[in-house]
Amino acid sequence: MTTPTVSTQFLSVQDVAAIVGRVGVDQFLARLAQRIDADYQRWEAFDKVARVAAHSAEGVIELMPIADDTTYTFKYVNGHPKNTKDGLPTVMAFGVLADVDTGAPELLTELTLTTALRTAAMSAVAARALARPESKVMALIGNGAQSEFQALAFHYLNGIEEIRLYDIDHAATQKLVSNLAHTRLRLVVCSSAREAVRGADIVTTVTADKTNAVILSADMIEPGMHINGVGGDCPGKTEIHPDVLRASNVFVQYEPQTRIEGDLQHMPADFAVTELWRVLRKEAQGRTSEKEITFFDSVGFALEDYSALCCLRDLAAELGLGQTVSLIPNLANPKDLFSLIRPQQAAGLRVVGAGADFALAA
Amino acid sequence: MTTPTVSTQFLSVQDVAAIVGRVGVDQFLARLAQRIDADYQRWEAFDKVARVAAHSAEGVIELMPIADDTTYTFKYVNGHPKNTKDGLPTVMAFGVLADVDTGAPELLTELTLTTALRTAAMSAVAARALARPESKVMALIGNGAQSEFQALAFHYLNGIEEIRLYDIDHAATQKLVSNLAHTRLRLVVCSSAREAVRGADIVTTVTADKTNAVILSADMIEPGMHINGVGGDCPGKTEIHPDVLRASNVFVQYEPQTRIEGDLQHMPADFAVTELWRVLRKEAQGRTSEKEITFFDSVGFALEDYSALCCLRDLAAELGLGQTVSLIPNLANPKDLFSLIRPQQAAGLRVVGAGADFALAA
Repeated sequence: MTTPTVSTQFLSVQDVAAIVGRVGVDQFLARLAQRIDADYQRWEAFDKVARVAAHSAEGVIELMPIADDTTYTFKYVNGHPKNTKDGLPTVMAFGVLADVDTGAPELLTELTLTTALRTAAMSAVAARALARPESKVMALIGNGAQSEFQALAFHYLNGIEEIRLYDIDHAATQKLVSNLAHTRLRLVVCSSAREAVRGADIVTTVTADKTNAVILSADMIEPGMHINGVGGDCPGKTEIHPDVLRASNVFVQYEPQTRIEGDLQHMPADFAVTELWRVLRKEAQGRTSEKEITFFDSVGFALEDYSALCCLRDLAAELGLGQTVSLIPNLANPKDLFSLIRPQQAAGLRVVGAGADFALAA
Repeated sequence: MTTPTVSTQFLSVQDVAAIVGRVGVDQFLARLAQRIDADYQRWEAFDKVARVAAHSAEGVIELMPIADDTTYTFKYVNGHPKNTKDGLPTVMAFGVLADVDTGAPELLTELTLTTALRTAAMSAVAARALARPESKVMALIGNGAQSEFQALAFHYLNGIEEIRLYDIDHAATQKLVSNLAHTRLRLVVCSSAREAVRGADIVTTVTADKTNAVILSADMIEPGMHINGVGGDCPGKTEIHPDVLRASNVFVQYEPQTRIEGDLQHMPADFAVTELWRVLRKEAQGRTSEKEITFFDSVGFALEDYSALCCLRDLAAELGLGQTVSLIPNLANPKDLFSLIRPQQAAGLRVVGAGADFALAA
């Protein structure tokens, strides 16, 4: 798109919540999953890099850029496990969609809610390719901010009917049960991860601690299970014992990133994995037998955010939601950036005392 | 800062223009230069990476993150030289300042205008350390969007009294002359870069073409000159003949980035350069003689944007400008992200026909 003015659309948290509400969470997840699936099948079309992380004592702040020939997106996202103590979300995110031909940012949007939705949709896409098709029971370990979205994606998109819940924070589990009471999901509260996992077709782990934890050990795993490992997504933040990976056929989004961030970080560099896009395109095999254990080492890749930003752009336009913000100047003469401050100069306004210690020569 | 709510302040293009207008462009530049100088002297305090670039046929989109122990910033910036044809700025930018302890984005602001100001302030800081102190005459090659800001920074902060102008686009030069008519600068329009450079104390090149151009060749350079090379800032985008670098004492912001992006990209990997922070801290020598040619191979580093974002945050607070935007959810229970869409679920609103082709299992 090339137009003489730059118009940046802004979607607030409330706007995105309204979009999801208007479309319906099931349809929103379905639309997102379809877009993710289609975008993964265009794998070579994207300019991909591992996300850029700034680590600190309490957490991490990351930027996740990606682009195809026409559209550039990036997401800002943090991970601060101790935030909930202070009443803040562990994960906060926003992102931008821009036009590759001009560099103009066209959409700026909240992505905290969207990240939970897109992660769940991604999990559903992977499980559709990797889990046994008749899967009905899922264990869900970690019942925090993302858990309802995982539950609903597997319910609506993969036919899961029963979810076995466990969290060290019982209140989190109660919150999930209450939030999903309106659905037809059978919710079973368990007293340990081991109890939750027993007999499940799919195991989703989505815990938040930035530690090398062992949520799943090899003796908990049963033949034919599909493991959807979501919470091991940062150096030093893992959930799964290496023996589980050794026993599994392991699938990843983008191998260079997952080697650093995923539960894969504990495995040797030559430990074989398959990138999911190859399975979605039927260029590689997914599950090879009823008995095989499949493992999706999900870390969150920029491509899911690209898909989500494209969906939000399209839905906001369809539904007429959002507002324009003045993020980029519109100039009568693009070489006359100075025109932005010329009127103020002429008006001669000046705050006395906002002075500088840096000497003025003039 | 740890508070139970996340409040993101937004500064539009108009807000930042108002800040500059209220403070005065001279004082704004002075304050920014002082902050950049001080931040460069805290060099080790920052977690630094070369910017992350996505190149396309028409330009580049970059993300520039940096952090110290308390504050994280990043800038989004593009470079699309052909944009002006279509009435769009070549360079458009915005950025965010966030709290390292929580990951919460505290300030979202336009940075197109700000980038021109911070680049000019950075140039002035470098020239103060590298140019001959009695410099009065500057050649300014490239009279586009950034040129007035360069002229004013050198006028107000470095004592430049005469500026010799050249641009292949004569209208751009006329625009500059008109924009700076209110100042006490003596503006001399020249008919070639060579004519502009002759006899100048300082030479600033700030052209926009994404080509390996030769704006300055070695035979144009005179003893004692300081060269402020601003427009060679991207792989394949250079302005200066390698012989000029060979004849000069070369200074850079962040060596790993400048080796890739600066005019330095044409030089062998062992070509000696000095990082400017060492000069500002008096740990390395700047100019060594009256006759020496000094070259600041400016590429734009994330640290200047960090300084600018901190200045804008402080000034917006002092002046009461900007507004709060709902970029991050405020949740009664931070683990209850689902609460954002619960009301809509209950209301049962759904757009008929926004359906998905991805099959719903439920």
